[in-house]
Amino acid sequence: RSGEMAKLTQLIDNDVFRAYATYTTIVLLKMMLMSLVTAYFRMTRKAFVNPEDTASFGKGESAKKYLRTDPDVERVRRGHLNDLENIVPFLGIGLLYALSGPELYTALLHFRIFAGARIAHTFAYLIPLPQPGRALSWAVGYAVTISMAYKVLTTALYL
Amino acid sequence: RSGEMAKLTQLIDNDVFRAYATYTTIVLLKMMLMSLVTAYFRMTRKAFVNPEDTASFGKGESAKKYLRTDPDVERVRRGHLNDLENIVPFLGIGLLYALSGPELYTALLHFRIFAGARIAHTFAYLIPLPQPGRALSWAVGYAVTISMAYKVLTTALYL
Amino acid sequence: RSGEMAKLTQLIDNDVFRAYATYTTIVLLKMMLMSLVTAYFRMTRKAFVNPEDTASFGKGESAKKYLRTDPDVERVRRGHLNDLENIVPFLGIGLLYALSGPELYTALLHFRIFAGARIAHTFAYLIPLPQPGRALSWAVGYAVTISMAYKVLTTALYL
Repeated sequence: RSGEMAKLTQLIDNDVFRAYATYTTIVLLKMMLMSLVTAYFRMTRKAFVNPEDTASFGKGESAKKYLRTDPDVERVRRGHLNDLENIVPFLGIGLLYALSGPELYTALLHFRIFAGARIAHTFAYLIPLPQPGRALSWAVGYAVTISMAYKVLTTALYL
Repeated sequence: RSGEMAKLTQLIDNDVFRAYATYTTIVLLKMMLMSLVTAYFRMTRKAFVNPEDTASFGKGESAKKYLRTDPDVERVRRGHLNDLENIVPFLGIGLLYALSGPELYTALLHFRIFAGARIAHTFAYLIPLPQPGRALSWAVGYAVTISMAYKVLTTALYL
Repeated sequence: RSGEMAKLTQLIDNDVFRAYATYTTIVLLKMMLMSLVTAYFRMTRKAFVNPEDTASFGKGESAKKYLRTDPDVERVRRGHLNDLENIVPFLGIGLLYALSGPELYTALLHFRIFAGARIAHTFAYLIPLPQPGRALSWAVGYAVTISMAYKVLTTALYL
């Protein structure tokens, strides 16, 4: 079985694939960070959605008042959902793009701009920056994904 | 390193994998389109959720009235979330299915029906079509994914 | 082309990759189950969100009263979204981890604990269990994903 493992390792040894692995892990970790930011705001703003989450604040009405929405919590949640909507396409299309044999330089350019755009988008959403800051950072990540999709379809199209 | 790249390219040269790459890219692009449709409805219906998005409409109360929900915007957002809930399983299970050595004809049948069902689901949701139009298109995509999961588990099961 | 197919099959023949395929399919199927639970609660609680979904209950006001939110439906939907937020990172980081050449024993430990944690999280959310039941099951899955991300970045880092 060591022969098979060697072949698997070759995939992770390929520079384009390593770059994909690196930037995909970075943007997924960044997305996971949104869960911690949501939890932080829920606890500091005392704004919860599940009755069992407020049980430590006492029983009945004294705990019930913490079952409410908070603008900061909702803002982080919208940023998190926007990550899902944009990082899922990157995850899938980026993998296929990495396997479609792009030049290393071109691939790195795509991955770096996408990761930078999504990190910028998070800052633009959470600070928040005035528009079109958030719109532009979103559009850049979107355009990079479309560009990779174009490469995948022109390389691999089989309908 | 050209030897490694050649091996990578073999993956994208495999017909089943090319079909997976093609249909996955199509359904992910379709899902990404939902972001544009949401933005279109937010702007034409003037229904926003972030205060910074309405700043161009003026200050204070004149802009605040555009911070509201709109039925058309919410409908597109539900369609988008339904895409996420169903296309993420296709992305993962479909990849493993493509690597599990299915017949090309069978694989194409799965991928084509899934993509068709998700496109039909979007039309059924946005027009909207009377039920059970949307329910049926959802169920067809769901059943295709279950069928691929069955093939993956019978081929690769290692608990 | 049978040579290429053989190479593809070697991927699914690798024990670590087979384990990844198995547990990924299991957690994705578990996530898909949330759609059925949502539909079940929507129908038994008669709580719908789309007007076309209540058409079978009659016309006008008699059907309109079923366009409402229900605590049980909303609970399942939150569990479903939490699945998306946590299983998407597992899908991507887990794949890269499986390709980074981990020991079979270590890989199985990661995959089994993650799958167990997510199944426990679903029960904790839907029953619901008192906290910190849900928080702990969430944190365990989160920590496993971070551990896999660490392995990927130390093996494949290419910035």
